[in-house]
Amino acid sequence: MPHRDFVYLGDTARVPYGRKPPEMVVDFATGIADFLCGLGVEGLVVACNTASAVALPKLVERCARWDTAPGLDGQVGIPGPRNVPVWGVIDPGVEAATRVTRTGRVGVIGTKGTIGSGAYQSRLEARGLRSWAQACPMLVHVVEEGLADSPEAEILVRHYLSGRPEMDTLILGCTHYPVLRDVLQRVVGDAVTLVDSAEVTAETVAEAFEPAPRHTAPGRVVHFVTGDPVAFAHTAGVIGGVEGTIVPLAVTELAGACRSMA
Amino acid sequence: MPHRDFVYLGDTARVPYGRKPPEMVVDFATGIADFLCGLGVEGLVVACNTASAVALPKLVERCARWDTAPGLDGQVGIPGPRNVPVWGVIDPGVEAATRVTRTGRVGVIGTKGTIGSGAYQSRLEARGLRSWAQACPMLVHVVEEGLADSPEAEILVRHYLSGRPEMDTLILGCTHYPVLRDVLQRVVGDAVTLVDSAEVTAETVAEAFEPAPRHTAPGRVVHFVTGDPVAFAHTAGVIGGVEGTIVPLAVTELAGACRSMA
Repeated sequence: MPHRDFVYLGDTARVPYGRKPPEMVVDFATGIADFLCGLGVEGLVVACNTASAVALPKLVERCARWDTAPGLDGQVGIPGPRNVPVWGVIDPGVEAATRVTRTGRVGVIGTKGTIGSGAYQSRLEARGLRSWAQACPMLVHVVEEGLADSPEAEILVRHYLSGRPEMDTLILGCTHYPVLRDVLQRVVGDAVTLVDSAEVTAETVAEAFEPAPRHTAPGRVVHFVTGDPVAFAHTAGVIGGVEGTIVPLAVTELAGACRSMA
Repeated sequence: MPHRDFVYLGDTARVPYGRKPPEMVVDFATGIADFLCGLGVEGLVVACNTASAVALPKLVERCARWDTAPGLDGQVGIPGPRNVPVWGVIDPGVEAATRVTRTGRVGVIGTKGTIGSGAYQSRLEARGLRSWAQACPMLVHVVEEGLADSPEAEILVRHYLSGRPEMDTLILGCTHYPVLRDVLQRVVGDAVTLVDSAEVTAETVAEAFEPAPRHTAPGRVVHFVTGDPVAFAHTAGVIGGVEGTIVPLAVTELAGACRSMA
C-alpha cells in the first residue's frame, strides 16, 4: 500500500510490554489507540503480540464508535461518530498456521504476557489443532542488542525450545522474532515451518481498503516515539533501519488527547 | 548519609547505554550532568559503569567550574563559579579489587561499552595486576526481566565466563550485576571474590562530606526519570523497589537547561 499514509507509534519510553501486567498493557494500548484515532486514521493495526493478546477486545470496542476526527494536516475530518477498524496480529498468525500445518501440531513462542494470556492456545485449539506454547522473555532483548546472529541467540533459543514436542509448524508470536528466523530454523530443523503473522496481517488490512488510483503520490510514513528519537534511530539501525520521519511524543500526550499529525 | 538529599536521574527513555557509541553516551551524560549541576548538587556520582568508562574526564572538566547554582527549592544557591566534584564507579572498583586480590589475577565483566573502552583493564594493569575482561551484553536484560534466579541467567553466565583464566577476583563492572551475585558466585566458585564497586564508591563520597549534625531531619530522595514513571516503578519493583518520589522529566529538558528541584 505504498500510496497510503502510515502513522507508527513506538512506545519506546514504556517498552518492553512483554513482562508487564495485562491491566497496564491495556491502559497503555488504550491511550495509544485514542491518540491514533484522534489523528483521523482509517484503521488501526495492533502490531504487537502482547497488546493484541490482552487488549484487542477493549480496543475494538473503543474504536468502533470514535467521536472526533480532526483529520490529517489539521483538515476537518469525517464529522461525528465513525468506526475505526482494528486488527491484531494473533488471528492472522493462527490463520497462517492453520493453512500450513499438516499434522495439526503447532507450537507458538512469544513474550510472557502473550503466552500467559492463552490467546494463541485457545484459538488454535478452537480450530482442532494441538498447541504447545513457550514464553521466551529474553529473545526480544537478543534482537534489540543486535545479537540475532550470536552464541547468545543460539543458546537461548535451544534452551527455550528444548522441551518442545513433535510439531510441524511454529508461530513466531512476537514481532521481533522474524529477525531470529535463521537461528530458529536451524534449531527446529527444516521439517518445521516458521509462521510470521506480519504477512497475513498485511494481506488482511490491504483487502479492507480500496486500491489507490494509479499515479497517486507515494504516502508518508511518520514514526511517533515516546522515548528519545536518537536512541530509537540507533536501535532501529541495529535491526535494519527506519524510513520516514521520526517525531518525539511525550507519554503525557497519550492520555486520550487529540492532536493533528505534525 | 541519611540526612543528605539525593537526586537520582534515571535516563530510562534512552537506556540501555551499554551498546551505544561512546560519543552518544558522552552527549547523554553531559546533558544529565548539566541538569544536576543546575539543581545545585554538591557532588555528582556517575553510578553507571558505561558512562564512567567513556565520559568521566569530560564530566570532571565540565563540573569543575559550574557557573549557575539556583539551589534546591528555588533558593538562591552559591553564586558564581563553583567546583562540583564528580565520582565514577571504575576507580572504586579497581581500588576494591586491588585490596582483595592475592594472586594479582583479576577479571572484570561489564557492558560492551565498558569493556570496549579498556577503562578497567588499563587501570588494573597500571597497578601491576593481570586482567581478563568479558563483555556480557545480555546480563542487564536478565536483571531487568526479573530473571536473576532463572535458567536463562545460569546459561548466560556460564557462557560468558566459559573462557576465563585462573583468577581470584572478579569485578562486577555494571551496576546491575550485584543482583546476579548468587549465580555468578556459583559459576566461578567460592575461591573467587566478587567485587562490587558500590560500597567503595559510597565510602569515597561519604569521606568527602562533613557528617550531618545529630538530630538533622532525614534527607529527601527524588528520582527523575526520562521514560514513563509507571514503567520505571514496575521495573524497579522487579529488582527490589524504589523509595522516594518519582518525577517525570522530558529528555528535551536535558540539553543543558537549569531547573529547580520539584
